[in-house]
Amino acid sequence: MSPIDLDALQPSVAWVEDHIEIIDQTRLPGEFATLKLSAVDDVVDAIYRLAVRGAPAIGACGALGISVGLDEFRPHEASSARSELVRLTEVIGSARPTAVHLRKSVERVRDVASAGQTVDEIRSLALGEALKIVAEDRDACTRIGEYGRTELAGVVNIMTHCNTGRLATAGWGTALGVVYAKAAAGEEVRVFASETRPLLQGARLTTWELMDAGIDVTLMPDGADATAMAQGMIGAVIVGADRIAANGDTANKIGTFSHAVNAHRAGIPFYVAADVSTFDMSLASGDEIEIELRPGHELTSWRSEPTAPAGVATWNPAFDVTPADLITGIITDVGVLRPPFEESIRAAINAGGDR
Amino acid sequence: MSPIDLDALQPSVAWVEDHIEIIDQTRLPGEFATLKLSAVDDVVDAIYRLAVRGAPAIGACGALGISVGLDEFRPHEASSARSELVRLTEVIGSARPTAVHLRKSVERVRDVASAGQTVDEIRSLALGEALKIVAEDRDACTRIGEYGRTELAGVVNIMTHCNTGRLATAGWGTALGVVYAKAAAGEEVRVFASETRPLLQGARLTTWELMDAGIDVTLMPDGADATAMAQGMIGAVIVGADRIAANGDTANKIGTFSHAVNAHRAGIPFYVAADVSTFDMSLASGDEIEIELRPGHELTSWRSEPTAPAGVATWNPAFDVTPADLITGIITDVGVLRPPFEESIRAAINAGGDR
Repeated sequence: MSPIDLDALQPSVAWVEDHIEIIDQTRLPGEFATLKLSAVDDVVDAIYRLAVRGAPAIGACGALGISVGLDEFRPHEASSARSELVRLTEVIGSARPTAVHLRKSVERVRDVASAGQTVDEIRSLALGEALKIVAEDRDACTRIGEYGRTELAGVVNIMTHCNTGRLATAGWGTALGVVYAKAAAGEEVRVFASETRPLLQGARLTTWELMDAGIDVTLMPDGADATAMAQGMIGAVIVGADRIAANGDTANKIGTFSHAVNAHRAGIPFYVAADVSTFDMSLASGDEIEIELRPGHELTSWRSEPTAPAGVATWNPAFDVTPADLITGIITDVGVLRPPFEESIRAAINAGGDR
Repeated sequence: MSPIDLDALQPSVAWVEDHIEIIDQTRLPGEFATLKLSAVDDVVDAIYRLAVRGAPAIGACGALGISVGLDEFRPHEASSARSELVRLTEVIGSARPTAVHLRKSVERVRDVASAGQTVDEIRSLALGEALKIVAEDRDACTRIGEYGRTELAGVVNIMTHCNTGRLATAGWGTALGVVYAKAAAGEEVRVFASETRPLLQGARLTTWELMDAGIDVTLMPDGADATAMAQGMIGAVIVGADRIAANGDTANKIGTFSHAVNAHRAGIPFYVAADVSTFDMSLASGDEIEIELRPGHELTSWRSEPTAPAGVATWNPAFDVTPADLITGIITDVGVLRPPFEESIRAAINAGGDR
């Protein structure tokens, strides 16, 4: 395989001259279009409408959004610039109320920039810190990719779930980061993307970004996992994570747990890929994670087309919790963690600091 | 629970006075409408367009279609009626080339009716044999339902896959036959219907027919199976079958195998419900069943709406094969078969004859 050039690919979020440029994910997979965000309303709207999605990508967009706001409202004094920082942090940070990563990112920019003594210094610090957040995420993705590439040397056929790539992060992704690392090294890699009902992030986004990068990808229904594995089509499964408890139990998009059970039965290694900020040491195990239920309309129609009878009862959990005993390893930016996860996660947290 | 009256429900296929009446399944779940089939072209068209679907329902519709044809073309002599029988058998029998059950049903009507000595006698024999096919299917469904009801006494929460009910058979269905039997007996029953990607028979049809019957049904994504089971929401899984090998390995809609693996992990009983004609003793095991691949457009759009990028590679198996070791029992019209299935299936075949 000839290596692919990762830097030639359009990132989901980037700072270009004096504005943010994002891939408009609401237009995918039908159409590729970028959006220029040069006002705070644009930033909030893009985050709210899911034009940008994936916790790290949203965090990066929000952090850069502070600079967009400072340029838009042009405060004349340091004190008003500081007030503006507080206001922008509130406005952007609440564009998606449940996005913890977004709030952390804008608060980090606010806290660093507030130390500036002049308006110019405040603006420079804000942009610098936001670009640092972007760079850190890219770096974490690259490290995850490299650790995963070493771990999965010789594995060609990788099954994944949901979207955990270039469209979800400021870099090359977590689970897909491993795929991009293989492709960038010229190694043979083939991805089987499960559709990921109900919102079809696998069908719409993972396929799009891998095809766009020239990486071999095949779309399959979520429920075809058992058969693909039994037929020897899958060498390893790699998924992302929303949150990982101290014992390794992993919350991720609904359908992940089912894939993990099937991989276990088939004797296929099952990996979680996530940066160390995904560990939530306040959770002893996945039992403490409450499963969020989402509205039924996600199951009962696809855009304008009904897919189920009006008024049907639904059970639509947003994510599931894969028990640690089904997980072969957790590929992080500080290395591949192995069971017993209580110990390896604690060691990784200590090594990675509180990033 | 107050018992529901099964006979008050609209069947998928019925003979009414001088024509066939079917539920137009292409209009579901948006709209309930029946179609009157009083010409052979209507019958062929309904089968071809999947207005009627499910092997037993198609078989019943095709068998009754022979009578529709004899009434439409009104042969004057017994010899021309016999020629007409041969022609109608070809025309209707090839409306769906892979539908083995359809072909068997129309050939059975042809063979019985050909023995008639007059046009009237041929017409009477044809209608009589077709109605017998309908009655046999209804009877098989009822028996499956009753055996299943006894087996699953006390089990309230039943998960199922695809559509195996009143819309798929001339009776109350196979897996759903058990649900209807419980409801008709006034027993408490709650169904969790998995969507069944890609064609969403669970979302569109199973939910519709159970809601129409006043039976509690909840729709969930295919990949939510592991979580529903881990949370104690599911008492048993019951699915239908396309074909069952001599060792119990079961071919059924894609996604079935994955549910079975998950049920096994969760310690939840997993049943297959099917009449004895589903056993294919020419297959020693499921290894001999080749998995049919279906076109990618089923994964890449939902009606007019794209769900994946144009030109994406797809892997879209029509069905999967659940290994017998994952199956708790096979609920048939001659009783519940248990492992070792080689023996219990052979005994059932001998008891049930070659029906």
